Amino acid sequence: MNSLIAVATVKEEVKMKGSDIQAKQKKYSLQSWSAQKNTAPIPVEKAEGMYFWDFEGNRYSDMSSQLVNLNIGFGNKAVNQAIKDQVDQYCFLSPAYAAESRANLAEKVISVMPDNISKVFFTNGGSDANENAVKIARMFSGKFKVFSRYRSYHGSSFGAGNLTGEPRRYALEPGAPGFIKFFDPYIYREAIEFTSEADATAYYLTKLKEQIIYEGANNVAAIVLETITGSNGVIIPPAGYLPGVRAICDEFGILMICDEVMTGWGRTGKIFGFENFDVKPDIITFAKGVTCGYVPIGGVAVSKEIADYFDDNYLSCGLTYSGHPLACAAGLATINFYQEAKILDNVNAVGKVLAETLEKLKEKHACVGDVRYIGLFSAIELVKSKESKEALVPYGKDPEGVMPKILGMLKAKKFMTYFHENMLIVAPPLIITAAQLTEEMEKMDEVLTQVDQTFL
Amino acid sequence: MNSLIAVATVKEEVKMKGSDIQAKQKKYSLQSWSAQKNTAPIPVEKAEGMYFWDFEGNRYSDMSSQLVNLNIGFGNKAVNQAIKDQVDQYCFLSPAYAAESRANLAEKVISVMPDNISKVFFTNGGSDANENAVKIARMFSGKFKVFSRYRSYHGSSFGAGNLTGEPRRYALEPGAPGFIKFFDPYIYREAIEFTSEADATAYYLTKLKEQIIYEGANNVAAIVLETITGSNGVIIPPAGYLPGVRAICDEFGILMICDEVMTGWGRTGKIFGFENFDVKPDIITFAKGVTCGYVPIGGVAVSKEIADYFDDNYLSCGLTYSGHPLACAAGLATINFYQEAKILDNVNAVGKVLAETLEKLKEKHACVGDVRYIGLFSAIELVKSKESKEALVPYGKDPEGVMPKILGMLKAKKFMTYFHENMLIVAPPLIITAAQLTEEMEKMDEVLTQVDQTFL
Repeated sequence: MNSLIAVATVKEEVKMKGSDIQAKQKKYSLQSWSAQKNTAPIPVEKAEGMYFWDFEGNRYSDMSSQLVNLNIGFGNKAVNQAIKDQVDQYCFLSPAYAAESRANLAEKVISVMPDNISKVFFTNGGSDANENAVKIARMFSGKFKVFSRYRSYHGSSFGAGNLTGEPRRYALEPGAPGFIKFFDPYIYREAIEFTSEADATAYYLTKLKEQIIYEGANNVAAIVLETITGSNGVIIPPAGYLPGVRAICDEFGILMICDEVMTGWGRTGKIFGFENFDVKPDIITFAKGVTCGYVPIGGVAVSKEIADYFDDNYLSCGLTYSGHPLACAAGLATINFYQEAKILDNVNAVGKVLAETLEKLKEKHACVGDVRYIGLFSAIELVKSKESKEALVPYGKDPEGVMPKILGMLKAKKFMTYFHENMLIVAPPLIITAAQLTEEMEKMDEVLTQVDQTFL
Repeated sequence: MNSLIAVATVKEEVKMKGSDIQAKQKKYSLQSWSAQKNTAPIPVEKAEGMYFWDFEGNRYSDMSSQLVNLNIGFGNKAVNQAIKDQVDQYCFLSPAYAAESRANLAEKVISVMPDNISKVFFTNGGSDANENAVKIARMFSGKFKVFSRYRSYHGSSFGAGNLTGEPRRYALEPGAPGFIKFFDPYIYREAIEFTSEADATAYYLTKLKEQIIYEGANNVAAIVLETITGSNGVIIPPAGYLPGVRAICDEFGILMICDEVMTGWGRTGKIFGFENFDVKPDIITFAKGVTCGYVPIGGVAVSKEIADYFDDNYLSCGLTYSGHPLACAAGLATINFYQEAKILDNVNAVGKVLAETLEKLKEKHACVGDVRYIGLFSAIELVKSKESKEALVPYGKDPEGVMPKILGMLKAKKFMTYFHENMLIVAPPLIITAAQLTEEMEKMDEVLTQVDQTFL
């Protein structure tokens, strides 16, 4: 065992090579969501806007905004400066004290929320935003059951992971009691065919209401939904679905919690995803786009009714880094940037180009079963056959590594994104221009041609 | 609902007043661990070393290192500069890529760990470090029961909160299955009197082993302990206790997980708390002192055996901000500072003064039942009577607000810390000098005289 004192610190004067960085990171750290021997993390030397470069000077295009968080791209000067300025005041301050950046971000966040929302509790990220949302819903309601959906990802800590419906929750089982799952409105792959969107909405709402009644409506604290299912394939709710969920919540006194971790902060062409569907949740969780990850933060925003309840009742929530001053300074600068740059205008304008491009790709390529898009948030669902809708790789299984191979084809063109099951995510930074998007989607077009030729 | 576009951004040119900051923070955000009407967060304008100032120029002494995290105090120039330099490269990079600061911090962390530890997985803070430790232990072992202790705090998210034994877990109930609690070696308040430390150790180890056997030793994945119980009153294990736990773990093939979130990074006079007791855990969780909270981060360090397991097996852990480049740069600079400043020498030298002072306070004041200390980590346990050991306030109840009043007496002298039940925590920044400590502890002496006179 070394001693803090005994170890001499050798300042690294010589610039490290990319290969050394990769080797060192692999040697000393565990890489996420992987068997370690399969990882080869590209070392990144510099980054600007929607591009980043490895140590050999290769330029990559960030077509997933990293993890759907880097809405403003790399190197935003205003946010960088805000962080540096906050460093000069102080980096850290206990949540028990008041800090200017903390107060100002709280005010700013509430200013862009629906008018029923009055206070925010800051967390470290999206997972613990969802954790605290469930805690707050239970404390406020005195009930303990929480509904969430199968095709959802809400985080990988125990509470968020129990909300999560897809396989990433298995590592948390046996799960906590009271976490109930229902099915999302995944019309493309539903067991029955609908004659209209309204029919689909009616079906899903009837099933949800039925399940709530069977679980005991009086026991249900909250329904938690990604407003638009994200990682699991950009599943956009049909018209009337979210207002219907809102009505069910109102009927039974259940809190509606929208997880806006991915969909928040402009991604869908509105500030928050739920604005596309004309509903007001009781609790809103967010992270990612609020600082774009420049400094880690998340948050839970709650209705006035809930906030008022905690005037006299103990809020059993807290974490060391809550309302971190650096993160709050970064968040304030980020939201200011969104407003000054009129980012929603760009999302809607370039989003229209994305939509048209995706529809053309679907028409052109046999391997494209479905495309789903809203704003700059989209997924391409790959199939063996458009008619049978058979997925290009079966759910949860890809022994031949087909999807990694397709990602490799994109990577060869320096088009960087990720996949989930048989779906490719396309969610570029919100600062992308139409010309940049078109340039990148031509690469996608070429790769889909390769897929048509190779895997069908 | 406002629009991101429509809202004009008014640059705040006028310097805000402290009272406005406090009012704004209260209006728009939820304060931790409180009924909101009871909060009056002091607005902090500037901070340096172990001091911070409000907007009226009052200087406060930080005698708890904020939340036992600010080991290097405020405004450390080297760490500040490291953050700014990293901002100039990039603030964020997905965990899927390799970053120089990420690789270097991983290497540095492992370099100060015991020689059985080989890799680290970075998280956002202490809670999710513990969350991921449990997940890793379960994945590696294939077992699901996890032992932890009643007088413990491991975080407030669902997994960490299920490990936590004290009342802050109640908001998470009904809890997840498989989280088993046992009692800590709290000799001062044990139901039986021990004739020696060795007797106490033998008692606690026998009870632990008995409970493990009754739970089914083959079902137990891990034992999770704060190496030295922190928030719940700096409960220092008796000689032989931790080696005994290690031996029980080895006997039954159970992983030993030490939560070093508070005790890590020099707090106890060693880099990690367990070094005081000559044991090597299988998994070590940390946060707080690794960056002192300058940028949020936490981590789970695992043994070579565990790390190797994940070469071929899928690690079902991941989070957006894992291995955050800014946090890693801050962590690297922080650990370098510890080493260059020979911080452990200071902790041990000033810790000796703290120990002597606390023993004198115990001797002098009727209200001091027990003092417990190691390095610069200590608690003063207040009683109505030294002989009966009756706590100054009963467990979980303080209707007269006695402890807040005592905190108020300290605050009147600008001695800032926090309490837990009937205990005052004293854990100043590790950069404190003996003269500074003596000056502050004179204030404590005066307040304890007031307590003797007012509450006994």
